[in-house]
Amino acid sequence: MEGFRFSTDLRVRYAETDAQGVVHNAVYLVWFEIARIAYLDQFPGGYRGLVEAGMEATTIESHARYLLSTRFDDRLRIWARASDLRGARFRFDYVIGRDGEVVADGWTTHACVDATTMRPTRMPPALRERIEEIEGG
Amino acid sequence: MEGFRFSTDLRVRYAETDAQGVVHNAVYLVWFEIARIAYLDQFPGGYRGLVEAGMEATTIESHARYLLSTRFDDRLRIWARASDLRGARFRFDYVIGRDGEVVADGWTTHACVDATTMRPTRMPPALRERIEEIEGG
Amino acid sequence: MEGFRFSTDLRVRYAETDAQGVVHNAVYLVWFEIARIAYLDQFPGGYRGLVEAGMEATTIESHARYLLSTRFDDRLRIWARASDLRGARFRFDYVIGRDGEVVADGWTTHACVDATTMRPTRMPPALRERIEEIEGG
Amino acid sequence: MEGFRFSTDLRVRYAETDAQGVVHNAVYLVWFEIARIAYLDQFPGGYRGLVEAGMEATTIESHARYLLSTRFDDRLRIWARASDLRGARFRFDYVIGRDGEVVADGWTTHACVDATTMRPTRMPPALRERIEEIEGG
Repeated sequence: MEGFRFSTDLRVRYAETDAQGVVHNAVYLVWFEIARIAYLDQFPGGYRGLVEAGMEATTIESHARYLLSTRFDDRLRIWARASDLRGARFRFDYVIGRDGEVVADGWTTHACVDATTMRPTRMPPALRERIEEIEGG
Repeated sequence: MEGFRFSTDLRVRYAETDAQGVVHNAVYLVWFEIARIAYLDQFPGGYRGLVEAGMEATTIESHARYLLSTRFDDRLRIWARASDLRGARFRFDYVIGRDGEVVADGWTTHACVDATTMRPTRMPPALRERIEEIEGG
Repeated sequence: MEGFRFSTDLRVRYAETDAQGVVHNAVYLVWFEIARIAYLDQFPGGYRGLVEAGMEATTIESHARYLLSTRFDDRLRIWARASDLRGARFRFDYVIGRDGEVVADGWTTHACVDATTMRPTRMPPALRERIEEIEGG
Repeated sequence: MEGFRFSTDLRVRYAETDAQGVVHNAVYLVWFEIARIAYLDQFPGGYRGLVEAGMEATTIESHARYLLSTRFDDRLRIWARASDLRGARFRFDYVIGRDGEVVADGWTTHACVDATTMRPTRMPPALRERIEEIEGG
């Protein structure tokens, strides 16, 4: 996918569908999160390591466009890219593809927070440097 | 809430929280849907009646802003407003309040589709008229 | 419902359905939890109060029987009864009805745990007494 | 795992946790379903193929025992075994392991139904034979 260097794959669960026979719109935000977490696996310890080190990320905003329905058992690829790293804040963009066709896209914005106080805190420099390295300078 | 004539109330479920101790971001889209469906209760037969009459609504786009965390057992009020009724398409805006404070807002866009073919179809005139009546001329 | 003194009502959410057009089997455990929490509203402060006082309840076992399908917008009544209060452990039984017909039933067992250590702890005497009072001597 | 010939792996999603910091009890039923569907991948076309051929399976009963908490990012292995194939009915048993330790187990019973009428129908002979072959005669 043009502009993306990272992707992760998933298979649609039966429980993710609704009575229209397609995946429920809220599930896409769960998939975006799965892609963010898979993306952070590129950082030593991953998201779990960040949480254990006392950092959490809260979601500030989410946006999704549903272009084509997805269904039970579809094999999807989710492309993810981090950007706009400013202080405590960062943004992720996503594109969801199926057999080479884009079925959805979206973005989320986040803030790093201290896991104890839940107050905004600057992104750990090592994480910032790793993301900049992944996304290319 | 300024600009809204309809609201519905809900209580946060334990299952809606995540390990941060707050409600997961995807759940807000489920709440938006609950508000849309409650809104359509103002139309005879409600959303269920529309589905039984062969109409479905698909979600085209969603947007949410998470302003303050919500937690287990919070009592929330969701304000909803339909707008931009054009052909098959329509839009809903939402504001979620807790004790008079806004905790989140967002919007979704939709298309009416034929329940059998899933192809876009004009909104039933009786529904359009009822919405225009609710939202005021 | 014979043998039950408490019930709470709910309306099936669209997001709770799956591609078979009926409610997904996992959702019934969420409903059981909603009934437990509503049941504990009869205790001052409710489940939230217990959590704030440093007690949590973990689920040890769950069982559900799905007798009749439930669908979007169904109005359900969930009957709940606490029993078998022994030390840290207790049990809840449930019956889910729709228009006077039983659509599902089940039970769950739980242990009271200290919210900090997550180790089993005796049920607070005031809660035990309140439950015994509710269920009748 | 003694008595099981099939397993599938999964990684715990953040959205599957609740405010206790552990996975919500209802999620285990979703995981059981994932294991059933992965199991049926051993049959040509998988569960999706059966659905497309006009067969569905409904869940009649579910049972789960929660032995140890599971948490975000845990890598789990779900063992699954089909048994008790009688007419339209069948049963699945499950064991969930983490690092060689059993964290949960359970079982579900199901009925094959005609996808159009939703009435019980005998399991397709080819599926029955494949399951008997997998489970060993």
